Parts: sequence; structure tokens; C-alpha cells
Amino acid sequence: MVGVFCFGAKRSPNTFVELRFYASRIIRKALTEEKQVSTKTSAADLVTETDHFVENLIISVLKEKFPSHRFIAEESTAAGSKCVLTDCPTWIIDPVDGTCNFVHRFPTVAVSIGFAVNKELEFGVIYHCTEERLYTGRRGQGAFCNDKRLQVSKETDISKALILTEIGPKRDPATLKLFLGNIERLLKAQAHGVRVIGSSTLALCHLASGAADAYYQFGLHCWDMAAATVIIREAGGTVIDTSGGPLDLMSCRVIAAGTREMAMFIAQEIQTIHYRRDDEN
Amino acid sequence: MVGVFCFGAKRSPNTFVELRFYASRIIRKALTEEKQVSTKTSAADLVTETDHFVENLIISVLKEKFPSHRFIAEESTAAGSKCVLTDCPTWIIDPVDGTCNFVHRFPTVAVSIGFAVNKELEFGVIYHCTEERLYTGRRGQGAFCNDKRLQVSKETDISKALILTEIGPKRDPATLKLFLGNIERLLKAQAHGVRVIGSSTLALCHLASGAADAYYQFGLHCWDMAAATVIIREAGGTVIDTSGGPLDLMSCRVIAAGTREMAMFIAQEIQTIHYRRDDEN
Repeated sequence: MVGVFCFGAKRSPNTFVELRFYASRIIRKALTEEKQVSTKTSAADLVTETDHFVENLIISVLKEKFPSHRFIAEESTAAGSKCVLTDCPTWIIDPVDGTCNFVHRFPTVAVSIGFAVNKELEFGVIYHCTEERLYTGRRGQGAFCNDKRLQVSKETDISKALILTEIGPKRDPATLKLFLGNIERLLKAQAHGVRVIGSSTLALCHLASGAADAYYQFGLHCWDMAAATVIIREAGGTVIDTSGGPLDLMSCRVIAAGTREMAMFIAQEIQTIHYRRDDEN
Repeated sequence: MVGVFCFGAKRSPNTFVELRFYASRIIRKALTEEKQVSTKTSAADLVTETDHFVENLIISVLKEKFPSHRFIAEESTAAGSKCVLTDCPTWIIDPVDGTCNFVHRFPTVAVSIGFAVNKELEFGVIYHCTEERLYTGRRGQGAFCNDKRLQVSKETDISKALILTEIGPKRDPATLKLFLGNIERLLKAQAHGVRVIGSSTLALCHLASGAADAYYQFGLHCWDMAAATVIIREAGGTVIDTSGGPLDLMSCRVIAAGTREMAMFIAQEIQTIHYRRDDEN
């Protein structure tokens, strides 16, 4: 079944060309309009009608083509659907990554679609809606941005590194202390800089393209990292758990880096911020 | 003399079309190449050959057209030129804003050119090199991104605000504490989010376009804010000192916001980080 998808230079499959066209048209149109905004787990965890609309569109198109497949998607999960990865072919979808940016018309917003079989990530597609960049990666076949092959940074030295992170939805004083403390540690270790762009998915795409040396976050979800994980690994990068162990897609935490040395340095340096797992309850 | 420049939709002057073309071609080509990187005031304050090359190009083109004008430019100042704004017509130039991004090929890099007469900012031109967006503003004649008129956000409520800031070049423990403490205060005040994109100039352009509600920074320079200040004011925004008083272009600190209420809220909330003035010897 997976074989029908061919990724790489000039080989985007029709289903994704179609989905990219409609999803990005919806999102770009909505970027110019007033939005009805609701909150989810915290006052900073936002959702709009567009998130629901794009998610429904993607799921309906894919369901028609692959009626036996399963879906894990951000807004369905928020509405109570179980978020459990089985061995079945499963699409893992973030319809609007960077919803807070989207609400503010801050032009850093993406659609992310990952695909797993036997709990193994097979491929990922991420579309940067305002800059019209399509990131793709398929296991064993490389990663691309539009037609250009992606290659991660080879940097191992933190004092020459650009680091990316995101705040996460929890904003209680203890979480903020840990979040800011982690940035402080990395800047004290003389990292060139830390960037916070408001989209985990696009930050991970920057990592895949070699534009940054490491990314870490607590409080992101499986739909934020599923597609990006394949893309980064196919670009030669490392994606691990914040403990330094193997990535657990449901753990709501990640370190990605161009090199294993850089990933392990970050793992040793940062303090854990606890979030509930995606597959809890 | 100023009258020869016409800004706005479809009216970029030839000098700027020419400068934009050459400067962005140089920067975009250099983005793909290995770079010789040096440091200035700190290990995080970087400079490359491209900064020098683009600055020399801009100054030589403008000097030929306007031999009596003065120049304040980032790399000339670093090399010892005086940074004093007089009543003379003066060009205020940042050849590569976001040098750390540029070094890492992180695609958020701009050229910024402001122009002042009698110490009054007359117009500004900022070019986003990788996204090919030209931001222009002329006093009394509006601000534009390419052909689209810019309009700031009208938000006055911090709990609905997206805030932008930058780290600044000083990285001593006391400065980092203040920098992170300011972010903490704004997140505790329930701001939707804080973004750090690595280019003061482009962050200020996002503010001008209404994609964010406020920007503040300590440790930026007159060439980071000269062009952007005109653009923001012409887009209906407020640009003030971090004390809440009038902007002092040489003070190395700024608050910009869509509304005066938002700017004053930020002024009351943040703690001062001391930097030497640009016009201090």
C-alpha cells in the first residue's frame, strides 16, 4: 500500500499535490480573515475553525483512498478520539501547525502529515503554507525541500550552534522557570543563539535543512514530530528522547540534531518539563 | 533632495531596485557558501565578509548619487567610524541584519536602509533576502510590503498578544537573567506567545504588518531600527523608548507596538538591560 507513494525531487504523489493545494489555499485565505478562536488545554493552546476544516478535509481525502487506514489527528484527539499508535497503517496529522501564529497572521504556519506502519514512521510531508515550501521524506529514500535534497548540519560544538525550541502549552510558573532555565543553560554554554518561531514542525524542517544545529521541546505532540522525524532522519539527522534514549513518539518530548554528539549534549544540559503522554487515557 | 525618492505601491526608486537586486543576490549566493566568521563585541556578535561587502556596495552606490550625504553603517562603526546623527542628510545602514542567522543559513536575513534629515527619519527600506519581500515606508506616505499597504495590529490586551524580542549581543549571567526575566513577566501576564526570530529588522517588519502586537529589545542599534521605525509609524504603530518616553535612536533600546496602550504596558512590565549608547565613544 505504501508503495503508491513516491517522494523526492519532482515526484510528489497526486494525493499530496491535491491536499497541499486545497489545505494551503484554505489556510492562506483564512490568514487574511478575522478568526473565531477557542482555547484547549490552556489560554495559550488555541484552535480555530480552520484547524477543524483542514483536518476534516485531509482525513476525508485519505479515508476515501485508504478506507482501512487509521488516523491520529490533533483536533480529533482534542475532541476525544484515542491517540494510540498500533501496527495498522496510520496517518498522523497536524492540520495547522503554529495555530497561535496563524491566529496572529504571523507567517510561519504548516500542514504536517506523517505515515506509520508497524509503528515505524514511513514518510512525512510538511507544507509551509505562506512560503510554499514542501518538505518530504521517505524512509531510505532521502529528504527534500521542493526539489532540493536536505542535509543536516554536521556541527558538534555547542559554542558554534544555533538552537531552536518552542514554549509549549503549559504556562504555570514552575514550567516557565524550567523552560527559561533550559534556554539560560544553552546560552551560558555559549550557543550562538536560540530561536523560537512558533511552529515545532517548521523548526524541525529548519533542522533538517541544516539551518539550525539542534531542536528540543517538551509539550509537543506526535502530530508535531511524526512527519518531521522521517524528514530529519533522511537528511542525516538524529531524533531522540530528551533523556538521550530512543524517541518515543507519544512521549510529548524530543531532541533533534544534526549530529548525535549535539543531541547528547542537549540531553545532558536540559531539565525535564513533565507533560502527559499523548496515549495516556 | 529627498523628493527624488517615491515610495509605495509599484514606485520603488531605481537606486533601491538596483541596490536590492545586487545586495540580495550577494546575500543569497553567500547563504549557500562556507563563510569566514569573526566576532565583534561578544562571541555571539558575528560578522562575515558579506556584511562588509554589502555595506561597501550600498555606501558606494549612494555616495556616487549623493556625495554630500553622511553615512552611519554597522561595519563602518565597528571599524571605528563615529556613530553620530547630525542634521545632515544621513543614511543609516545595516547590510546584513540577522548575521547569526546568515552564518547558519537560517533564512531570516534582511538589508535595512533608513534615511534621516534634521535628525528626523524620512524613509526606510528593508529587504527580506530569502522571501523577496520589500518593506518600504516614507513619512506621511504610508508603508508597504511589496504592493500591499501595511497596517499594525489594534490589540491593546496583553492576554491576546503575540510579542517579539531578540536576545542581544551581551550574554553575561546578569544580562541573561534580565532577558529571560522579561520573557517570564510577559508570559505570566498571559501573552499568547513570545517569538525570537534572530533579526530585529524583520521582527519589526512583522510588527508593521500586524503579525505581532509588540516588539521590545535592549542591545539593538540605530541601523536595526532606523528604517523599521518609519515603516511602523506609517503603518499606524508606536515606536518608543523602553522607559515609555520618546524614542532615542542612539539609545540601543526600543519598544514598538500596534497601539500606544500595548507599548506602555510592555514599558511598565520589562526591566532595563543596560547597553552602551551607539553615540558613546
